[in-house]
Amino acid sequence: MPDASGASAPYYRAVGREVEAMRAACGASLPVLLKGPTGCGKSRLVEAIAAELGRPLVTLACNDETSSADLLGRWIVRGGDTEWLDGPATRAVREGAVLYLDEVAEARDDVLVVLHPLADHRRTLWVDRRSEELVAAPGFQLVASYNPGYRRGSKDLKPSTRQRFVTVAMGYPTPPVEVEVLLGETGCDASVAKRLVAFATKVRALHDLALPETVSTRLLVHAARLITSGMDARLACEVGVVQPLSDEPEVTKGLTDLAALMF
Amino acid sequence: MPDASGASAPYYRAVGREVEAMRAACGASLPVLLKGPTGCGKSRLVEAIAAELGRPLVTLACNDETSSADLLGRWIVRGGDTEWLDGPATRAVREGAVLYLDEVAEARDDVLVVLHPLADHRRTLWVDRRSEELVAAPGFQLVASYNPGYRRGSKDLKPSTRQRFVTVAMGYPTPPVEVEVLLGETGCDASVAKRLVAFATKVRALHDLALPETVSTRLLVHAARLITSGMDARLACEVGVVQPLSDEPEVTKGLTDLAALMF
Amino acid sequence: MPDASGASAPYYRAVGREVEAMRAACGASLPVLLKGPTGCGKSRLVEAIAAELGRPLVTLACNDETSSADLLGRWIVRGGDTEWLDGPATRAVREGAVLYLDEVAEARDDVLVVLHPLADHRRTLWVDRRSEELVAAPGFQLVASYNPGYRRGSKDLKPSTRQRFVTVAMGYPTPPVEVEVLLGETGCDASVAKRLVAFATKVRALHDLALPETVSTRLLVHAARLITSGMDARLACEVGVVQPLSDEPEVTKGLTDLAALMF
Amino acid sequence: MPDASGASAPYYRAVGREVEAMRAACGASLPVLLKGPTGCGKSRLVEAIAAELGRPLVTLACNDETSSADLLGRWIVRGGDTEWLDGPATRAVREGAVLYLDEVAEARDDVLVVLHPLADHRRTLWVDRRSEELVAAPGFQLVASYNPGYRRGSKDLKPSTRQRFVTVAMGYPTPPVEVEVLLGETGCDASVAKRLVAFATKVRALHDLALPETVSTRLLVHAARLITSGMDARLACEVGVVQPLSDEPEVTKGLTDLAALMF
Amino acid sequence: MPDASGASAPYYRAVGREVEAMRAACGASLPVLLKGPTGCGKSRLVEAIAAELGRPLVTLACNDETSSADLLGRWIVRGGDTEWLDGPATRAVREGAVLYLDEVAEARDDVLVVLHPLADHRRTLWVDRRSEELVAAPGFQLVASYNPGYRRGSKDLKPSTRQRFVTVAMGYPTPPVEVEVLLGETGCDASVAKRLVAFATKVRALHDLALPETVSTRLLVHAARLITSGMDARLACEVGVVQPLSDEPEVTKGLTDLAALMF
Amino acid sequence: MPDASGASAPYYRAVGREVEAMRAACGASLPVLLKGPTGCGKSRLVEAIAAELGRPLVTLACNDETSSADLLGRWIVRGGDTEWLDGPATRAVREGAVLYLDEVAEARDDVLVVLHPLADHRRTLWVDRRSEELVAAPGFQLVASYNPGYRRGSKDLKPSTRQRFVTVAMGYPTPPVEVEVLLGETGCDASVAKRLVAFATKVRALHDLALPETVSTRLLVHAARLITSGMDARLACEVGVVQPLSDEPEVTKGLTDLAALMF
Repeated sequence: MPDASGASAPYYRAVGREVEAMRAACGASLPVLLKGPTGCGKSRLVEAIAAELGRPLVTLACNDETSSADLLGRWIVRGGDTEWLDGPATRAVREGAVLYLDEVAEARDDVLVVLHPLADHRRTLWVDRRSEELVAAPGFQLVASYNPGYRRGSKDLKPSTRQRFVTVAMGYPTPPVEVEVLLGETGCDASVAKRLVAFATKVRALHDLALPETVSTRLLVHAARLITSGMDARLACEVGVVQPLSDEPEVTKGLTDLAALMF
Repeated sequence: MPDASGASAPYYRAVGREVEAMRAACGASLPVLLKGPTGCGKSRLVEAIAAELGRPLVTLACNDETSSADLLGRWIVRGGDTEWLDGPATRAVREGAVLYLDEVAEARDDVLVVLHPLADHRRTLWVDRRSEELVAAPGFQLVASYNPGYRRGSKDLKPSTRQRFVTVAMGYPTPPVEVEVLLGETGCDASVAKRLVAFATKVRALHDLALPETVSTRLLVHAARLITSGMDARLACEVGVVQPLSDEPEVTKGLTDLAALMF
Repeated sequence: MPDASGASAPYYRAVGREVEAMRAACGASLPVLLKGPTGCGKSRLVEAIAAELGRPLVTLACNDETSSADLLGRWIVRGGDTEWLDGPATRAVREGAVLYLDEVAEARDDVLVVLHPLADHRRTLWVDRRSEELVAAPGFQLVASYNPGYRRGSKDLKPSTRQRFVTVAMGYPTPPVEVEVLLGETGCDASVAKRLVAFATKVRALHDLALPETVSTRLLVHAARLITSGMDARLACEVGVVQPLSDEPEVTKGLTDLAALMF
Repeated sequence: MPDASGASAPYYRAVGREVEAMRAACGASLPVLLKGPTGCGKSRLVEAIAAELGRPLVTLACNDETSSADLLGRWIVRGGDTEWLDGPATRAVREGAVLYLDEVAEARDDVLVVLHPLADHRRTLWVDRRSEELVAAPGFQLVASYNPGYRRGSKDLKPSTRQRFVTVAMGYPTPPVEVEVLLGETGCDASVAKRLVAFATKVRALHDLALPETVSTRLLVHAARLITSGMDARLACEVGVVQPLSDEPEVTKGLTDLAALMF
Repeated sequence: MPDASGASAPYYRAVGREVEAMRAACGASLPVLLKGPTGCGKSRLVEAIAAELGRPLVTLACNDETSSADLLGRWIVRGGDTEWLDGPATRAVREGAVLYLDEVAEARDDVLVVLHPLADHRRTLWVDRRSEELVAAPGFQLVASYNPGYRRGSKDLKPSTRQRFVTVAMGYPTPPVEVEVLLGETGCDASVAKRLVAFATKVRALHDLALPETVSTRLLVHAARLITSGMDARLACEVGVVQPLSDEPEVTKGLTDLAALMF
Repeated sequence: MPDASGASAPYYRAVGREVEAMRAACGASLPVLLKGPTGCGKSRLVEAIAAELGRPLVTLACNDETSSADLLGRWIVRGGDTEWLDGPATRAVREGAVLYLDEVAEARDDVLVVLHPLADHRRTLWVDRRSEELVAAPGFQLVASYNPGYRRGSKDLKPSTRQRFVTVAMGYPTPPVEVEVLLGETGCDASVAKRLVAFATKVRALHDLALPETVSTRLLVHAARLITSGMDARLACEVGVVQPLSDEPEVTKGLTDLAALMF
């Protein structure tokens, strides 16, 4: 079980066939795209697979500003001379690492195209600022994650990018598995874990609330941790689960009342 | 009571359970998001908690231009050589400080994703320009504030950011508490404090005015201070409370007349 | 009376209670926002108050390009080494000067947030490029001006900025005061001053013209000065008052005819 | 008469009272805005006035990219050291020159505000990159030009800028004056000049053509010059006047036929 | 057959007359534009032709950020001096290489115009940053690819660019050819290849699904490779073909069921 | 006849009176704008005129990114010192060259204004980054090209720019002239040239196709060259003419069938 310092071995509890699918794709040297809602464990799965493969993990949190220099590297001036600094993609290609593009849809399509030759049979990276073509070292594996739940503007991946990835869909676990995750992650009481999962199950069924995203396992972990450290369970549900979901007073009032019924 | 120089210990008067919730979240090493209207005391609460925890406070006023370099740091050239200058996030992570992202929703979503690994179980910060991964020092605590009252364009936090934070909702105090705050902050007469709070209470009930935001405790503090330093109470209400609320002549006329009835 | 070289002591003729309000706010160390139409004397008032307080005046004409570096300062390379150049906000904070943000609404909201800690009880400025926190020297006073008459796009100040300022509304003077201003500023004949003010009064009453802004005192000063230096009064009204108001031929024709009736 | 090399003294033939108005405004040290359609002689008038005043002329062709550094100056690195290069505004202020902002409405409003203190009683320029305040040398005169005929987007000057300028409206000359201009500028035959002006007069009366702008004196000068250098008059009208006015085949066909009737 | 390392000779199986057309265009020194859907083999064809011509291949993955410096080269500072680094277009022109602009429509039209003199009878490249005009070495060949299936905003090539290219349309192969491609690329069982192609044929006929793009040969190759490396065929279809096509649960459910019927 | 290397003397076959008009405008030192559809020979005409005048030709392919530095020049650092690099406009002005702005409407209006003083009686260029005013050397001639066929957004030249240019309209040649051009450029058989022109004539008459631009002479030259180098005529029409015109399957099918009828 990882503690707050993140130092221990990564814990991931399989929900469906995602672990099996990911192992096979890595075995066939095909890039993998994990898609699923926020807080369902995408980053955890990548950490666990990288540990299993015994490869270093290079993570890039993608964003709208991510430039090709951020991926590939740049020249910097140091001590009067110019020195090259590898970007994460270049580093991962050289080291045969797992390159993890977190929230890949946040990056602009047009930046991702520099990875196309790396994501198909060529397995090469063209570092234009060095006029150098790199072939991926053995063990290199490309992984990306994507949340299809919120699509704003042009934030869909374009087909020529998506079709380069084997795509594994992930979701929230079933109630018994989610209880198990809470116990494994927080060491809370079984009755607390069960009530939190029951609360989440009810909220997830309320489709009329027009929430941008529903209760994630992550939120339940937060609430369980607050309760374990001594907070009143109702307040823990309010600040750990309800207030992060909505700013609408009627919605937060309703959900807080619902939590009060469970505890 | 802090004076104008800001040198004394921070004063914060609890309005609801926000202090209790914040202490517990800090105890569980979970990031905290304070949400509430302008001038309700969010920054004050953070100052008070940081003092209580005995940790340094690193504040970043977020804005649309905030880049990942502003968070993480940059290379600067000094004396012929290149030198690294830590950004506030990097500094706070090294020192185990309270990192306060004021008005976090002003920053672009896509910049905030660089803080995601810091805001979950990993508690790490990837400083890409140095190719260095930092683990947060003990005592590090992430806090952010957010005003849900005005949402312009895409200025909502996205779910994958929000669900990383325990979220504490704040509001304006009840009249007796607000009177107490005015007395504590400005040393004005009790009758002045009561009249100002009564005036605020009336204005807050006028939902037809279509004000962008209503009377904050901050505005009442201003008016009380002006009156204490000798200004005519009606003029103090006009320049301290009414004119900051609206540019519409009918609205400012009406509210000034209302103030005249109270004093 | 200030001459064209601007060397003499600043002249400001109070129209309402704006001088009294501004003195009190400065006395209570609260930031002041002057709001009013173009050419009503906002900048003059600030000059007069700064002279009265005996503090230096640091003016920044805000615009859409104003960056936080323009406010706070920047590193420049000179003689092979890097040297810090204070921006106006930093300079004013160090010197205890009056910092005047002219047309503050032209600056982007998100830049102004860096001034928030300076505009509340903290009275501090965080200069991120130096990793240095400055406390305002005694005598420091923040003043801003704002023209609510034209609002384009997002050019409204946001509430969390506005509610940090005591706000003083200004307007054009009453006719007798305006005549006095013309005489004081230009030394023109009393009959010229009276006719110009009468002309302005008529134009200001014509709400059907859909002018972006009406006749300011500044325009009357221009016309009076042109007449004093020998220009024909009708031509002075046309080029000094009418043509600056509109590009519509019917409007400029009508107003020029109206001026001809007065002279 | 200026020849193609532009070396001789500037020629300007007054159309209305624009020369008189401009002389008076310069005499009273007030900034001048010349407004009128393309090719009516605004730049010529400025050249003539600067020559008459015996002051150097500093012209800046404004555009959307014009930054405050383009107006004020910048630091450049030369020979290992940093050197300051004055911008046109700074140079004009130091030398007491005529500063001519050609097509001022093309510059962004927010850049022009840096000139506000120069355009009112202060007559000062704040050069922020040098932290230096300059007072305009005697003889300094600010002139701007503006074409109100095409307004795109936000390309109107804002009132606080416009009301700082005495504004002189200009237009195309009356037929007899325009014939005189053609003779003076090109030395063409009187019959050619008369026919060209007659043609222009007819086209200007055709309001149904929806041309972005009508025939300017400049276009007639072009046609006259082409004819003088031996081109067939009909072809000269087509390539010199008609094709520059429109890309619509029906419009250019109709206007070419009209020209054929005149020659 | 190329393996995952990409080291062997390029394999391309002609689908229509595209190879013949491309050979002729290269023979006549005319630029070629390959247009077709994602994953139909455009890049493969270019690799095969470059190998056949015995010329080096210089690939540029175009994107919205591609600047003319990315095409032509730039000055970089190294070891205290400035050094020129050729861009891919400059390098290909000097070496007489095949210059391949992958996804050319992603580049902005206005950047592509710098290639116009290279794409017509002039065969020259103007490198403005060096003030140098290069004539293409013998053997130089310009090739571009383009996917007309998704057109967003202004992402169409403009006519003056398109009409410089001989244009070869490509598509997915007929079922027998596609089976042959799967066998040649993955060495899977014939029955697997036939079922995958049958599945693809059915999906391609479902026009009601509103997919951004349909099943490409690339996706079938992925699925075949996963099956060959031991994955269950239904799961291989889901993660290799179905999930990359859509995020709509109803669509992915339906297609997964359809795959289950085939295997 | 120019060959693929572009080394021979430029060939241009006059279609209308464009050569005559251009010679006269150059003789009168007036700037020339060539307007016409893509592939009608604008660049060829400029090359031919420059050769006839015996002046060097400086071409700038304009685009949306073209900055005033791209026109005028910039300071670059080389060997430890700063060196000035002339831009194409500056170079042409110094050398008395023909300055050709290809696709001038692609450049932003506001950049073109820096050329205004060069395009009127002043014939001067203000190089702001050097604070230097250049007078054009004898022989300097400004030429620009423009395709009025596609107007996107603000891509029209503004009147104050257009009215500085003598404007020569160009179009596709009449069938007999076009046959002559094909023979002169490609050396194909007369029967091939006639059929290609007949095909083009039919397509140009099909106004229902909604093509962004119709068949240019350039496309016919491509097809003729492909046929001459041995390609089947129908395939040559498809890849050389039809596919460059449209991506709509019905349109390309219809046009390919039409070509099949001619050959």
